Amino acid sequence: MLQQLFSPSVQHTVDLVGIFVFAISGALLAVRKNFDVFGIAVLAEVTALGGGLFRDVMIGAVPPAAFTDLGYFLTPLLATVVVFFLHPHVERIQAAVLVFDAAGLGLFCVSGTTKAYDYGLGLTASATLGMATAVGGGVLRDVLANEVPSLLRWDRDLYAVPAIVGATMVVLCIHYDALTPLTTALAVVTAFVLRLLAMRFHWRAPRAWNRRSTVREE
Amino acid sequence: MLQQLFSPSVQHTVDLVGIFVFAISGALLAVRKNFDVFGIAVLAEVTALGGGLFRDVMIGAVPPAAFTDLGYFLTPLLATVVVFFLHPHVERIQAAVLVFDAAGLGLFCVSGTTKAYDYGLGLTASATLGMATAVGGGVLRDVLANEVPSLLRWDRDLYAVPAIVGATMVVLCIHYDALTPLTTALAVVTAFVLRLLAMRFHWRAPRAWNRRSTVREE
Amino acid sequence: MLQQLFSPSVQHTVDLVGIFVFAISGALLAVRKNFDVFGIAVLAEVTALGGGLFRDVMIGAVPPAAFTDLGYFLTPLLATVVVFFLHPHVERIQAAVLVFDAAGLGLFCVSGTTKAYDYGLGLTASATLGMATAVGGGVLRDVLANEVPSLLRWDRDLYAVPAIVGATMVVLCIHYDALTPLTTALAVVTAFVLRLLAMRFHWRAPRAWNRRSTVREE
Repeated sequence: MLQQLFSPSVQHTVDLVGIFVFAISGALLAVRKNFDVFGIAVLAEVTALGGGLFRDVMIGAVPPAAFTDLGYFLTPLLATVVVFFLHPHVERIQAAVLVFDAAGLGLFCVSGTTKAYDYGLGLTASATLGMATAVGGGVLRDVLANEVPSLLRWDRDLYAVPAIVGATMVVLCIHYDALTPLTTALAVVTAFVLRLLAMRFHWRAPRAWNRRSTVREE
Repeated sequence: MLQQLFSPSVQHTVDLVGIFVFAISGALLAVRKNFDVFGIAVLAEVTALGGGLFRDVMIGAVPPAAFTDLGYFLTPLLATVVVFFLHPHVERIQAAVLVFDAAGLGLFCVSGTTKAYDYGLGLTASATLGMATAVGGGVLRDVLANEVPSLLRWDRDLYAVPAIVGATMVVLCIHYDALTPLTTALAVVTAFVLRLLAMRFHWRAPRAWNRRSTVREE
Repeated sequence: MLQQLFSPSVQHTVDLVGIFVFAISGALLAVRKNFDVFGIAVLAEVTALGGGLFRDVMIGAVPPAAFTDLGYFLTPLLATVVVFFLHPHVERIQAAVLVFDAAGLGLFCVSGTTKAYDYGLGLTASATLGMATAVGGGVLRDVLANEVPSLLRWDRDLYAVPAIVGATMVVLCIHYDALTPLTTALAVVTAFVLRLLAMRFHWRAPRAWNRRSTVREE
């Protein structure tokens, strides 16, 4: 077991905060899609827990944490209640929600990477699953809402790259035997700040070269 | 192992009936979407077996029952043949199909809950997976057909709530050590009747409060 | 363990070629959908590895080969680079790409079937998972790209049937104790040639009978 960044109870609280903000993003999309309260709850759960579910199934950690930790399951329901009653207010503080979402991105790409490594996966696979932990819930959210995943669209600010950077920092630290609470925290903060900068300056990834010559714009 | 509601062979027959009617609903959607015979078979299989597959992967019951029980696999193919040749007639008895579908909902939410509990999950997680067993196939069906899942839409009669009620009754019975064939049957019948009532009186779940003030209708 | 068609290192090379051409098909769709470079990489990975991931999760082979074999992970990234810089040229040789894709279909339906059987599944389940190995990645590709899966559409040339035939040949050989390198190769070639013929002569599967009488065309 790798060392923990925080004590277990602090780590758990941090996880729940990340789950809460991811759930808020799912619940807000559900309201925009005009889903009923049950649809809001499903989208909140899937967005918050989907990435971790995918990672746990891949590494053989079943039943996944989402089904063994009651707090993980109840937190998205709390987010559902908040959005159900207060969503105009939540929409209004969307900027703050996005800052928390960036924090969740940083935390989950790092904790997902270390968990995968703890289960015996290689460095590249661990980083990939760390990234998938952070972004997987959002992809499932968009698939269930019948939209093109925000993650794949060129007209959205960078989201995966900060997670890839954070996960890569963790596996480099593991490789060079330098994973300490300090370097772990540095990886979280780097992913978090990169995502904030990407939103602030609208950083986007390039599309394929010479697109226009053969392919119609959609 | 919890006690069974029925003898194993009766239980198996009941399962196959539930799988058959779920498969019919998948096959009918495939015909409506103009899929070919193979697409009809895929949608029938996914609708009938998808919820149980998800549950089995989550609880670590691999290979899932869908791949170890030949009857589970062949029943949706039978439904495919029926719909392929007779779908105008099947469409005509849609009301009867929906009654059977409600029966499948009741059976699967209860059997899914008890199976998850048998594999050591907690009460909340067992109820959640019981509900997922009952509704998961329909969600996968709609995702593959590139539609917004019927489960999430506000303009559909309650579908998840009856499954939640049935699954909750089962875990309450387990908690109070009162799970008998009688109470199990009561949970099945309650979910079944609730779903029939929801269809009869068009019960729907509410959408978020104050929607119109900030969010466009879609 | 069933006997291998090729020596392990040749088998691995063959697998990587199949993964590469599947990844090309995912990357090309991503360019057509106007995704950014990261979206291209995700769709390439999912298309190439999704079918095998599904099979490995179902048979309990976790972590899946996609996460333990670095070559499996890196090959789709190579396809991403190729398509990113050269996609007009890749589009131009689309016919050649489709021939390789047919070869991948033949290889994966056979190797997927034998792997499932090695893990103790029955003959029908093994053939089903072999077919799913070959076509699953393409279905996930289309779901992520928010399109109706090409596999299900009536207006596409037969794709699943060649995979079903190849997988069925393998399980028949297993059943009659006749699985040799020669018969294995024959199954691969049969699926490959059937797919080429389906493309050449636009073989399609029938839709449900009497469709028009009750169902609107879409």
